[in-house]
Amino acid sequence: MAAETPAAGRSGVLKHIVLARFKEEVTPERLDHLIRGFGGLVNLVPSMKAFNWGTDVSIENMHHGFTHVFECTFESTEGVKEYIEHPAHLEFAKEILLAMEKTLIIDYMPTAVNNS
Amino acid sequence: MAAETPAAGRSGVLKHIVLARFKEEVTPERLDHLIRGFGGLVNLVPSMKAFNWGTDVSIENMHHGFTHVFECTFESTEGVKEYIEHPAHLEFAKEILLAMEKTLIIDYMPTAVNNS
Repeated sequence: MAAETPAAGRSGVLKHIVLARFKEEVTPERLDHLIRGFGGLVNLVPSMKAFNWGTDVSIENMHHGFTHVFECTFESTEGVKEYIEHPAHLEFAKEILLAMEKTLIIDYMPTAVNNS
Repeated sequence: MAAETPAAGRSGVLKHIVLARFKEEVTPERLDHLIRGFGGLVNLVPSMKAFNWGTDVSIENMHHGFTHVFECTFESTEGVKEYIEHPAHLEFAKEILLAMEKTLIIDYMPTAVNNS
């Protein structure tokens, strides 16, 4: 696979994408608490630089049942490893994974294609 | 589900995320051509504002077999609808979908959680 091509415009950051579908019994209040907790990791894990989230608004019906997207930004692959092993993340991950019916996690280093 | 909470820091853009796994027979040259074609839609579809891509570098083995991430940025939900219906996208989508073994598409409006 051509993992490194076309490689114009590598931004140097690593995006850590978590897709989730939560269990039916998770109340809006519980979900709100979990999302605030996820965002709060930015203040606890030094290598985590940004956190954004949103709910699925796609219109093509190819979302495989996932309803939530969480995007964490790190400066490097080492940064995401630090995050995964950080006690604050380990504690939070245990809590949020219990609330999830299904989860998909994929990391990538965003590159813009330069066609000009 | 608490779709709108906690809603601090809504950025106003729409992120269109495509996860893919390509068929075994897709050569690196073919893949390179397809990725350049995907990025080239930025120049053909006015509502598409940015394109980034990357290959999976996750270490948690929760990527469900997906190997590629493509992220398109639009200014609104209307923008992504224009993109989906645009002739340049329709022609390209037919080509790239044929090369994909599996595909997941999810759109969201990124919101940063404000914990301060």
